[in-house]
Amino acid sequence: MIVEDTKKVKYSEIDQPDITGVRMKVLLGSDEGAPNFVMREFAIESGGHTAYHTHEWEHEVYVLDGEGAIKQGDREVPVKRGSFALVKPNEEHQFLNKGKGTFRFICVVPFHT
Amino acid sequence: MIVEDTKKVKYSEIDQPDITGVRMKVLLGSDEGAPNFVMREFAIESGGHTAYHTHEWEHEVYVLDGEGAIKQGDREVPVKRGSFALVKPNEEHQFLNKGKGTFRFICVVPFHT
Repeated sequence: MIVEDTKKVKYSEIDQPDITGVRMKVLLGSDEGAPNFVMREFAIESGGHTAYHTHEWEHEVYVLDGEGAIKQGDREVPVKRGSFALVKPNEEHQFLNKGKGTFRFICVVPFHT
Repeated sequence: MIVEDTKKVKYSEIDQPDITGVRMKVLLGSDEGAPNFVMREFAIESGGHTAYHTHEWEHEVYVLDGEGAIKQGDREVPVKRGSFALVKPNEEHQFLNKGKGTFRFICVVPFHT
């Protein structure tokens, strides 16, 4: 059993041309002995966003703080603390911070290569 | 893509002899089209607890509110907002509310029978 505080895990900046102001930390994954899926925490700064992209695995998301949105095509759905989302495999998606504070969420993905 | 507010999903009381004051709702599972794992939200009332038990699948947990603890053998680890936990397959465990308010957490599990 592992029990820890998320504040004790450091964020890494994600440095890619189509990503702005996004940090990520893995809370639970294969290094911690998780057998099937990975729990990550994302923090997007005001004005920041992930890439608009698609991949073969799903996201299961739970929003912790801030005012964000999830974009898919012409649809941009506002999210806040207590919002949750399923992005199914191969669905296009983008996470955006639409507020002034940090937009934070948990994003769980299956093991993938 | 599914985006929803957790308040719109109703809790179900878990009525078992070794469980006290525990409600659960499935946020994302097979009914919502999730392909691999299930995101559930638990709420444990003051004085309540889940069963002390074990099973073949893991838990990945993120604490949302309240003052709780996770018990394993003689070890009882306090948790609060921002705590996260991995309970590995076949590890004994119990979630307890140690505070006066509701103890709420997200618990992700793989599909299992």
